[in-house]
Parts: sequence; structure tokens; C-alpha cells
Amino acid sequence: MIDAPSAPRRAAIIAVGSELLTPFRTDTNSLFVTSTLNDLGIEVVAKLIVGDRRDELSSAIAECLRRADLLVLTGGLGPTDDDVTRQAAADALGLALREDPTIVERIRARFARRGVEMPAVNRVQALVLETASVLPNANGTAPGQWIERGDKRVLLLPGPPREMQPMLEAVLGERLAPLAAGARIYRRVLRIAGRAESEVEQVAQPVYASWAAWTPPVSTSILAAPGQIELHFSVGAPSEEEGRATLDRATAEMLAVLGADVFSTDGSALEEVVGRQLRERCWRIATAESCTGGLLASRLTDVAGSSDYVDRGVVCYSNRSKTDLLGVPEAAIREHGAVSEAVGLAMAAGMRDLAGVEVAVGITGIAGPGGGTAQKPVGTVVVAVAFPGGERVRRFLFLGGRAQVKLQAAQAALNMVRLALDEFLPTAGA
Amino acid sequence: MIDAPSAPRRAAIIAVGSELLTPFRTDTNSLFVTSTLNDLGIEVVAKLIVGDRRDELSSAIAECLRRADLLVLTGGLGPTDDDVTRQAAADALGLALREDPTIVERIRARFARRGVEMPAVNRVQALVLETASVLPNANGTAPGQWIERGDKRVLLLPGPPREMQPMLEAVLGERLAPLAAGARIYRRVLRIAGRAESEVEQVAQPVYASWAAWTPPVSTSILAAPGQIELHFSVGAPSEEEGRATLDRATAEMLAVLGADVFSTDGSALEEVVGRQLRERCWRIATAESCTGGLLASRLTDVAGSSDYVDRGVVCYSNRSKTDLLGVPEAAIREHGAVSEAVGLAMAAGMRDLAGVEVAVGITGIAGPGGGTAQKPVGTVVVAVAFPGGERVRRFLFLGGRAQVKLQAAQAALNMVRLALDEFLPTAGA
Repeated sequence: MIDAPSAPRRAAIIAVGSELLTPFRTDTNSLFVTSTLNDLGIEVVAKLIVGDRRDELSSAIAECLRRADLLVLTGGLGPTDDDVTRQAAADALGLALREDPTIVERIRARFARRGVEMPAVNRVQALVLETASVLPNANGTAPGQWIERGDKRVLLLPGPPREMQPMLEAVLGERLAPLAAGARIYRRVLRIAGRAESEVEQVAQPVYASWAAWTPPVSTSILAAPGQIELHFSVGAPSEEEGRATLDRATAEMLAVLGADVFSTDGSALEEVVGRQLRERCWRIATAESCTGGLLASRLTDVAGSSDYVDRGVVCYSNRSKTDLLGVPEAAIREHGAVSEAVGLAMAAGMRDLAGVEVAVGITGIAGPGGGTAQKPVGTVVVAVAFPGGERVRRFLFLGGRAQVKLQAAQAALNMVRLALDEFLPTAGA
Repeated sequence: MIDAPSAPRRAAIIAVGSELLTPFRTDTNSLFVTSTLNDLGIEVVAKLIVGDRRDELSSAIAECLRRADLLVLTGGLGPTDDDVTRQAAADALGLALREDPTIVERIRARFARRGVEMPAVNRVQALVLETASVLPNANGTAPGQWIERGDKRVLLLPGPPREMQPMLEAVLGERLAPLAAGARIYRRVLRIAGRAESEVEQVAQPVYASWAAWTPPVSTSILAAPGQIELHFSVGAPSEEEGRATLDRATAEMLAVLGADVFSTDGSALEEVVGRQLRERCWRIATAESCTGGLLASRLTDVAGSSDYVDRGVVCYSNRSKTDLLGVPEAAIREHGAVSEAVGLAMAAGMRDLAGVEVAVGITGIAGPGGGTAQKPVGTVVVAVAFPGGERVRRFLFLGGRAQVKLQAAQAALNMVRLALDEFLPTAGA
């Protein structure tokens, strides 16, 4: 009687390369690997970064195989002396390496297509662990390898993402997806603006705490970025329908408590959400920025096709430019200061008239580190929106350095536009 | 006879936290830790990322201590059940934990300053390994710990960077810098614009290859970012003078072959270099952007104090706004197209007149994904600079997606301004 092979549950990842042990580079391959493994219901229990040393890598491999039943290695499959992954895996697994003539031919042909003879060093890339399956590399010379030993699996992948990623997807699709059939992990991300992490946590925690008792249970994590909080839901479900239905139920419960502060449930960035709102209304937008220095315009134009609704922007860093470009009354600046509701509104209204668009935004503030006062400390930012529904203006106090203040101010401005547009003409299914 | 303690040479780093094993977060603390250790001549031989599980962390600690003589852990010192670093370290080292009343008082006082009573859970943060030295945390509640056992050292640090970084610098300065006196690693970064990585490598490699034979040898690595290549030099030298002299010699050799394409040797970003040039000349700058959508203005204003020399910017996404805001002749757009040398120059000249500044930049291009033609494919960007020395205009073809094209275009524009200003009035010691 032969047992059907069981799917691995616990994986470890080793990123190989001495450059990943310097202050200048970090392993990012493991994020993609983790996501792909998680989709099959496989948890990552440890990640290691090891340099190009055969002895150290070999003992790291042995150690990881004690902790995990699937080990994924990225990097170290190149042709130079620094590339020790094949040899270290052979050492750790007690397997011999043999040259695969098919691979030699494939590499030779790859070079020939570029009219180049295969350098002798590349021959080591044809060394294969005995019992390993060879994984073809459509985007490079180094093939991958898949080794099974008892209930342990080891996967050797090249380091460059464009070689590694398709190879990983192909081998998992072929070897593990059938075992995991129906038992995948489904995910959803809710993005929230206008609330601090602790506020979101306070409101969200009692809701998601109860999901641990659901069948299947939904797990939640909360991640903070400047001006944005993300709630990540994941659920292991036997079918896509069940996964989606469970996530829909969780999303609905969370929307009931967080309301309009949730700006996306489909991974969209705030500038994409605002772009869709403008496009739906056939409205155009123009921006008048001081302390954000063009960051708001740059974010709006990060979206492909944004030339359909972004008309123009001005960055008026000097007071004179506020008057010149937008007709902000000098008296308003004198009386209220450049960072004031009056000036913010004058910037937005001036821009709306000047550009002849439906929506205009004015931002004025103190990004720091200089320029703060007791009344208006560094981080004080006024955002104003002028649009067919009227005018909105708010004053914020953002913490953090200059870059953080700029980021939060641009995010707050996008969020004010979103809320204003939603309120004036709520759209279905946004 | 008591041996003087010797400095550790080989370090391992463990980042603790289950969130670091998801597809959404990666450990970045280790980059700072690595840099700080390297400065003392200590090499990082492995990095691990482990979840919030006491048994797994404990065995990871034991394993790392076999490989390294210094182990730095970040994270897992918070007050919740998930925070297992103290306990796991005690398990691995066979040491007991005791509550330190001084720490309890310090945490209690920290809460009291905010008018809050210390939550009972925070008490675990006062648990200290026997024989450990407590490292005060100026920016949070979790103190760090420093443990010496034979020739092994273990350092427990909190996860938040603003708590971790000053604590690490303080403890290493106190405990290890005296041992490492004179044997530090010195570094320099050369930043290069206007050349591809392979071009830099081709020119630089024959130069830096010879440095391996120097006494002390200089090692070099090359890192590419959009629109920018970095050459990192490092040298282990017995004194700061010798380290600096060696790096000066290496820098001079590299400048001799790369010339004016090196824009900084002191870590400055391109916008900072341009900012200094403008400040030295008491000149002001204004920007007229189409495809970069405000990114150039945003980068210029990322520099603290840039309000001294940034006057204004406009983002003219629509053709009408180019005519309205900058007086670009409609005929020029009709005849040459919006993406053309004629329109780029008209944007720069129009902006210079309008703002009454010394330097103005015009950028027009096709960021994609739509809008390309056979003659002007996606990635075509024209940059023009108008300044007291005349006019400069160049056409580029950038590869990559929309974001990459924007980044490279803004970088190329900054670099054209830099080169134009340097050429017209070369500055000493830039």
C-alpha cells in the first residue's frame, strides 16, 4: 500500500548571496515566495539569508529541513565560483551531482542564439543533484531543481525575480497545487484613510476577534503606512466560492463599523479611487500645492490614463507665486498667514476658476524642519477642496519629518476629495 | 592572568515577528544593524527571520550562537503574549528571568507622564535575564538587554527603528567600539547619473579590480536604481586618517574615468546637489512639467530649506494648460507635437519669463502605457533647461512602466540642470 503524498504545511526560505548580508541590499524574493506558498495553504515558519559559502549554506539547509517540510532556496545558481547552492544542497542532502547533457545543450543553444559561444564556466550550471527534477528557465541560463526525500521537498530557484517567479509558479502548480486542491488561502485588503492605527485597531479588534471562531476562521493583520491603514484578511477555504463568501461577510462586518473611512476593498490606491470617481462624473481636477510641492499632482498622474481627468497643477512655493498664479489676495496672506483656511480656500477657488475645471484642491502648510511657530507648528497643513458641491476645508497637524508630512498631506487631500465627491453624488458599488 | 576580551568578528541577526513572515512586511532593521556592525569591522554571516514562537526562536538562537560570536535580536520585547524574545533567549542560554523593580518604576513613570496608569501586561517588559545589562530605551517602554557568556555576546533590541537604532549605537559605542579601536570599516558612496549600470561597470571594473591588491584593500560594489548608479567602496583600516586617505585615492581614480557623471561623493541626493548649486549662485528655479506630473517639483522640495530657491512649478497635463500657463504657442504643439524639442524649450522659456527666475525646466513626454507612436514610443521624454547660460534640450527614451519613466525623467532633468549650472559657472569642490 502506497500512501498518497501529503501536501507540505511548513516551509522555510533561504535567500543565498553575500550581497544580501551588506547594508545595501535586502532579500525581497521571499515576499513573492511567501505569497505563492500561502496561496496553497503552506505557512512560512522561518527565513534565512546566507552568504556565498558552501559550508555555511550546507548547514543552514540541514537545519531548515529539521524545521520545515518544504525548503525553497533562491540564488546561487549562477556560473561563478560564488555560486554554491547546488554544491551545498548536495552536501546537506548527501546526494551526488552529475552533469546533465541536455542542460549543457540548452545553455549552449541560448548563447548561440546571441551569436556567442558558451563560456566554459557556464558548464557548472548543468550540474544536477541525483534524483532531482530539472526545472527549465525560460528567462535565463540557470535551471531550477526540485528534490524529494521522504516527506521533505527542496526547491532550488535562481535569484533574478523574472527567472525565479515563473519557475516557482510552474513547479508549485504542477507538484503541489494538486495536493492542496481546494485548500487554498484567500485574501482581501481593506484600505482606510483618515484614522490612526490605534483608532482603527480599537474599532476593528472586537469585530475581527470573533472571526477566529468562524468555520473557516478568518485571520486579520493590521499594517500602517503614512496616511493609510490596511486590514489584511485571510481565510483557508476548501473552494473559491466559500473563500469569497467568507471574506465578503468579514468585509461587510468591518464596513459596518469603519464606514466611509474604508476607501478600497480591492487593492486600489487612493489616487485610483479618486480617478475612478472623476471619470464616472466626467469631471476634471486641478491642484494648487504649497508644502506638498507637487506630490499630490504626481500621485494623481501615477495612474495610467489620468490625462483624461488631470488638467493641471501649480506648485506655488513663494507667496508671490500664490498671488501671481492663483490670484490669492495679498491681504489674505497678510491677515491670516500663508498657512490658513482663508489662503487654502483662495488657492482652491482660484485654481478652479483659472483652470475651468470641476474640482480643485489647495494645500498650504509647514513641512519643516523650519518655519514652525507656537500657533502653527511644523506639520500644520490646511487642505481645501472646491467642487460643484461647494467648498471643504480642514486643518491637520501631522507628525514626522518633512517627507512624512508631505506624504500624509497628499494622502489627506486625496481623501478629502474622495469624501466630498462621494457625499455630493454617492456612487453605487464604489 | 585574565585575557582582555576580544572583539567579535562574526555576527548573526535575528528579526523576530510573525508579521515578517507574511508577504506584506520584510525585515529592514537588519540593514541598519549590519551597517553599524560593519563600521566596527564585524561581519554579518547570517540573518534569520523567525515568528513569535518561543520554541522556534529558542532553537534559532542556539543555532546562531554556534555560527557567530555576536547575536543581535530585534523585536519581540513588547508587552503581549506574542512577545517571546526574552523568554526564548533565557531558554536558549539556560538563564533565569527576574523582574527588575527599577524597570517597573521607569515604565510606570513613562505612563504616568501621559496621565495613564501602567497596564498590568507591561510588567513583563521588566523581566531581565540574569547576568544581563539593561539598556535604557529613551523612546519606548521596552528596555534592551546585553548578555555576555564566555566569548559569545547576545543583544536584545526592540523592533521599532526609532527605539532600536539609538540603543544599538549606544551599546556598541560603549561595549565594542573600544575593543575594535582602529580596526573599523570606512565607506564611501559615489553616485552617478546619465550612464547605464553596464556602462559604469565597463569603465569602473578595470579601475576597482586593482584595489583588491592595495594595502589595505578596497572592496567595491555597484548598485543600480532608476536613473542612478551607486558605487560603494569600503576599506578596513587601522585609523580614520588611513581609511579616509585610501578612500580619497580610490575616489580620485574613479573620478578620473567617470568625470562629471559622478554627482556626489558624500551621499547627497541629486536634488540636494542641485539645491546647493542654486543656493551658491543665489538663483531660483521654476519647473514646467507634463509627463512627470509634479514629481520634479516634489523632489526639489523634498530638501529642507528648498523654499529659499524653489519659486514655483506648474503641471500642464492638458495642451490647453501649456498654452494658458506658459504661453506655449499652439502652432508649436500643432507643428511639432506636444512631445518635441520646440515645445520643451517653449515650456522652459515661458516658465522662466513667467516666474522671473534664473533657472527653469520644461519636461514633456509619454509616460505610457498609452499615447505612444512609432516615431515617439512610450518612454520618449524631452527635457529643456533655460538659464543664464542659455538653453539646453535633450530627448530621451526611457524603458519601464509609467512609474519608472517618471522617475527616470525627473532624474534626467535634475542631472541636466546640474550639468548646465556646473558648466556655466564651475564651482570649487562640488
